Amino acid sequence: MEEIISMSYGNGGKKTSKLINELIVPKLKNDELKKLGDGALLNISNEIAFSTDSFVIYPYFFPGGDIGKLSVCGTVNDLLMCGSIPKYLSLSFILEEGFKIKELEVIINSIQKVAKKIGVKVVTGDTKVVDKGHGHGIYINTAGIGERIKGLQLGKHKIEIGDKIIVSGSVGNHGISILCKRENLLEQNILSDCAPLIDLIDILQEYKDDIKILRDPTRGGVATTLNEFVEDMKFSIELKEDKIPIDSDVKMAANLLGLDPLYSANEGKALIVVSRDACDELLEKLKEKQIFQNSEIIGEVVDYVESKVILEGKLGGKRILDKLSYDILPRIC
Amino acid sequence: MEEIISMSYGNGGKKTSKLINELIVPKLKNDELKKLGDGALLNISNEIAFSTDSFVIYPYFFPGGDIGKLSVCGTVNDLLMCGSIPKYLSLSFILEEGFKIKELEVIINSIQKVAKKIGVKVVTGDTKVVDKGHGHGIYINTAGIGERIKGLQLGKHKIEIGDKIIVSGSVGNHGISILCKRENLLEQNILSDCAPLIDLIDILQEYKDDIKILRDPTRGGVATTLNEFVEDMKFSIELKEDKIPIDSDVKMAANLLGLDPLYSANEGKALIVVSRDACDELLEKLKEKQIFQNSEIIGEVVDYVESKVILEGKLGGKRILDKLSYDILPRIC
Repeated sequence: MEEIISMSYGNGGKKTSKLINELIVPKLKNDELKKLGDGALLNISNEIAFSTDSFVIYPYFFPGGDIGKLSVCGTVNDLLMCGSIPKYLSLSFILEEGFKIKELEVIINSIQKVAKKIGVKVVTGDTKVVDKGHGHGIYINTAGIGERIKGLQLGKHKIEIGDKIIVSGSVGNHGISILCKRENLLEQNILSDCAPLIDLIDILQEYKDDIKILRDPTRGGVATTLNEFVEDMKFSIELKEDKIPIDSDVKMAANLLGLDPLYSANEGKALIVVSRDACDELLEKLKEKQIFQNSEIIGEVVDYVESKVILEGKLGGKRILDKLSYDILPRIC
Repeated sequence: MEEIISMSYGNGGKKTSKLINELIVPKLKNDELKKLGDGALLNISNEIAFSTDSFVIYPYFFPGGDIGKLSVCGTVNDLLMCGSIPKYLSLSFILEEGFKIKELEVIINSIQKVAKKIGVKVVTGDTKVVDKGHGHGIYINTAGIGERIKGLQLGKHKIEIGDKIIVSGSVGNHGISILCKRENLLEQNILSDCAPLIDLIDILQEYKDDIKILRDPTRGGVATTLNEFVEDMKFSIELKEDKIPIDSDVKMAANLLGLDPLYSANEGKALIVVSRDACDELLEKLKEKQIFQNSEIIGEVVDYVESKVILEGKLGGKRILDKLSYDILPRIC
């Protein structure tokens, strides 16, 4: 294998085969992928979830992860948010001519490691190469299939007045981390929270009657995702600012940069709307898992106004949080 | 809506919503897509095929199609080649800052038109924007899910000596078309064969015991795909040059350019390995369909040498066709 990606690695011929058979398949191998047909043949329950994301993050190596780990976690988390157990992934690379094969190897290693941890299989894929100046090292698309958890029905229509909003950990880390890294803003790295949320599966199964909807607040952050919950609905969501967990280094960096962590992307957090009756018990169960130890109940569903997200400040003042409308940070995922 | 894509269309906030809700969803709408969750929830038989492709073709508008049509046909054809009926697609855009929204609209119209014709639903998607100089207008990824055709078992292991090779129409059109268009080589456009192969479904169902394997000869062309059939196998494939259908304009352009249509990409053709007994009848059935009217039996499986693709020329001389090993043409799909 050469040291860098040349155009011929994308021609579908000998070099494409070499790349796939020597670098990709040995690391990700499973019975389905080994066959290398035009697609994978799978057996799965007849209720499935299907999701996709393209990842164009820059830099593609960042504190706490890389584009490989992110591209697995991103799609896996979307499948979880649909109330399904992630089973199979597709993996498609758009490589830029001149990209270092050593870097590709590190990225594939990350994919292998996190996919193994989750128990999800990469079963089909594709590799394209674009000429220098028409990419940025590497872009990755993953699509995923999950098996729906039986009896778990999620949706905005299930939300009721009095339901509570839980966030599964501190908010804003990923976006602030990437911005600081990209612009070399701080001496000390802030870690992205990039992680798979598979520890949610037990909780989704146990509290299937109490959980109304869940969503991971990626681009646009917590404020934008909560706005999606209230859009076109008769209710609003009211948050208590002092309940929202934010790590001290994230808070400091956000203050310095004039950014709001509530609009900053997360890549390992879930927002869960849950019935008032079950929320304390569910919170306790979450906190038992290491990844969710900073979970908090941050607000509730109210009906004194329609379709708004309201933040009650530490001194009691209230303001409306709209969807993200300016460019806090491009290419964070 | 503005005239061009700016970075804020990719921020996950208001403008991303606007793009999705005003341009994409109205054209592709169906019950699953309308919900716009993190993924789609689907009911499907428990034996499925799963495939993905990223499309980086340039130019993204070409004679006979565009990147939108291609990105649907490409994945749909891969699902067919696995012996499944295409049902659901994901659709993910990587747009370059400055891309014209009018062009995006034309591309989405193409997607809508061909998806409708096929009867496949776009049920989930994603949109990212990269800064100018890090893309090339538009890249598209599609992933697809198909329902396996019951009783159809495909694979190299089913190929037997004496089986025949059928190609479903003239070869080499797509690659030669794109090259001529990109380099402005000919006054008259050569049309790409970009098309969905859904008319194969009836034939796959009727001849499920006779068809051994099928594959669409895209990147690397007929020669490379046939090499994949013989790789690590005890048999070879022998082709008769004078049986291989090649359109006269493709032949002429290929001659002028010093290219071999057997290595040029196709985007609407299938190679079918079929038992000797059924091949004439199957060929007749193919020819009844307009899209397959130029189908031909082009060769057979032989055992006098292992793992080779052999071309018998018009005068009886034989030569080995290897996998594509040089760059005939980058970014044709």
